[in-house]
Amino acid sequence: MQLNQLETPALILDRVKMDRNIARLKARLQPFGVVLRPHVKTAKSADVAKRMGTPDTPITVSTLKEAEYFFKHGWSDILYAVGIAENKFAHIADLVSRGAKMTVVLDNKETATTLARFCRDHTLTLPVLLEIDTDGHRSGVVPDDPALLDITAELERTEVAGTAWLAGVMTHAGASYDCKSVAEIQAIAEQERAGVVQAAERLRAAGYAAPVVSVGSTPTAHFVQSLDGVTEVRAGVFVFFDLVMNGLGVCDQSDIALSVLCTVIGHQKKKGWLITDGGWMAMSRDRGTAKQAVDQGYGVVCDQNGTPIPDLVMRDANQEHGIIVHRHDASLTPMFPVGTMLRILPNHACSTAAQHDGYSVVAGTDHIEAQWSRISGW
Amino acid sequence: MQLNQLETPALILDRVKMDRNIARLKARLQPFGVVLRPHVKTAKSADVAKRMGTPDTPITVSTLKEAEYFFKHGWSDILYAVGIAENKFAHIADLVSRGAKMTVVLDNKETATTLARFCRDHTLTLPVLLEIDTDGHRSGVVPDDPALLDITAELERTEVAGTAWLAGVMTHAGASYDCKSVAEIQAIAEQERAGVVQAAERLRAAGYAAPVVSVGSTPTAHFVQSLDGVTEVRAGVFVFFDLVMNGLGVCDQSDIALSVLCTVIGHQKKKGWLITDGGWMAMSRDRGTAKQAVDQGYGVVCDQNGTPIPDLVMRDANQEHGIIVHRHDASLTPMFPVGTMLRILPNHACSTAAQHDGYSVVAGTDHIEAQWSRISGW
Repeated sequence: MQLNQLETPALILDRVKMDRNIARLKARLQPFGVVLRPHVKTAKSADVAKRMGTPDTPITVSTLKEAEYFFKHGWSDILYAVGIAENKFAHIADLVSRGAKMTVVLDNKETATTLARFCRDHTLTLPVLLEIDTDGHRSGVVPDDPALLDITAELERTEVAGTAWLAGVMTHAGASYDCKSVAEIQAIAEQERAGVVQAAERLRAAGYAAPVVSVGSTPTAHFVQSLDGVTEVRAGVFVFFDLVMNGLGVCDQSDIALSVLCTVIGHQKKKGWLITDGGWMAMSRDRGTAKQAVDQGYGVVCDQNGTPIPDLVMRDANQEHGIIVHRHDASLTPMFPVGTMLRILPNHACSTAAQHDGYSVVAGTDHIEAQWSRISGW
Repeated sequence: MQLNQLETPALILDRVKMDRNIARLKARLQPFGVVLRPHVKTAKSADVAKRMGTPDTPITVSTLKEAEYFFKHGWSDILYAVGIAENKFAHIADLVSRGAKMTVVLDNKETATTLARFCRDHTLTLPVLLEIDTDGHRSGVVPDDPALLDITAELERTEVAGTAWLAGVMTHAGASYDCKSVAEIQAIAEQERAGVVQAAERLRAAGYAAPVVSVGSTPTAHFVQSLDGVTEVRAGVFVFFDLVMNGLGVCDQSDIALSVLCTVIGHQKKKGWLITDGGWMAMSRDRGTAKQAVDQGYGVVCDQNGTPIPDLVMRDANQEHGIIVHRHDASLTPMFPVGTMLRILPNHACSTAAQHDGYSVVAGTDHIEAQWSRISGW
């Protein structure tokens, strides 16, 4: 099957670019001697995850539905990287009873207390990571928070069967997404490393083994200079890349493996608009580049082969309609005929991929070599 | 099952509010003597559509996947309201061959020509609506465009077996979403009506029967004063309503039937943040109220029963984390304990619902009376 035989819109994955992106991060991290625990929330696809390694690979998930799906497909070492809520304890226990090696995250004493009690009551052996806040952007306790040891006091200091035990610390440098230069990303990466290692050292001084020190974000993973004291790196969007990563200087547009194929269905010639059948439902409402130096609208417009067309962006969207216009001067919009297929590079791979049920996989040509499914929901 | 037994995040649908919203629009349109052809793109659920009428009801769809799904569930009179592309002709023909009464939309001569040829070649009888641009916001030809009759020249003037025939005209008053007052919505509604009727009259003067004159948007449907010359009204979001409709004055917050149930998983007490497990993946990235007088962030925060908590909004989001803060003063954020369940009213029902596989249906209490599935994708 060829691209031009697809009904549009359709999500296209260039496997060659994806494989190159995976190889790049692996090569980048290899000298540091850390474990790569990819965040499968971006692709939510076993077929994609297999390109990163065998199911022996440890993975990170953002939902328990991902945990179920990847466990069913053979993965077992699974970090659920969102602070655990009590209404998910039973589901975690059930996954463990079926053989999954689940690790959970928390950042407060209330959850530590109820989880410790749940594990004792259900003879559940569960490794727990304390979430550390190294950049103020989300959850976690700051590395020098006096409460650090109050929170962990309910957890065992080493692995003890039938308990919740503190396996270590984790952080996510979400602030790296707001950086203006590679130097800033490097500074955030060092702040992330230093903060989470400081927290681990405080815990070790109090008798916790804390074998795991986990950091992660795609920008910091690509530019970090030192990972001293870190044992594992999580990253998700690196597998596909996107325009936000391009705007941050983490990748070139030619590295972006994901695009949405759409068809020109009409024009507003006086306004210089191309109308397509790829709207925000196909791209998502994510406008991550809006706060960057170059606002890419709903995406950069490429020809059917995936080559960007200079200065052509998807400027606006209805649910199932895209509006494509020249970035600077609508009179310069090329009036491609009705029926022309275009590919749109997304702002944010995680949110665009989530709008689709699967990937039409190409390898640099028009030939579709596979259809890969993906999951969504909770 | 009760709400507090759900794993969060979860999409909650209050059936009592939904039924009231449906009854309201039906009662509003009844005196006009027009057909209501609901747009099922909002709910994408046969269970929801059944609350609007039997499968004898005509419907509007935004994707051919919706057409397939609703046809499978018994609906047959289906308007696909996105300009048809040639790569979908065969799919339309297949639906018709199985008994669906499909109507398609176009706004340009190239598509009219290729579609007419396709219908002749495949002995396909297909009603076509010409899309009219009544507010400059998307597709369509303006009512007095000299090209109007050039475009339709390829189509039959009445229903002739084995041809594409011009069944009429349609328009969508998307500009109504940008109105600042009810008076403005009424003006847009009249502009929508007058424009599409003018186009129909031009076609009739040229010998086209053009029996169908179709208008539609939720704001205009609720405030239109005259539907003279109009035969049918399409609307989608009316079934659930949302914060954008609330900001437009079309509904109260207490009419919003859709919400996302989430759980407090932590705090950043110094910053006055509640952290939940409902992030942008659960709400969508749609920030439709950002351009309204009151920006509701990612949504208005309600207690578990669905009652808004004064001045509490979801201000920011990560993929699976929500950040909830008092609208004016973070020091006033109520520090609900970890484990507290909250419900978030969405900016845009279509985009939030699209993030979920189904609805947990309640009827004003904590009791979940049903689980309704929905579809997504193309």
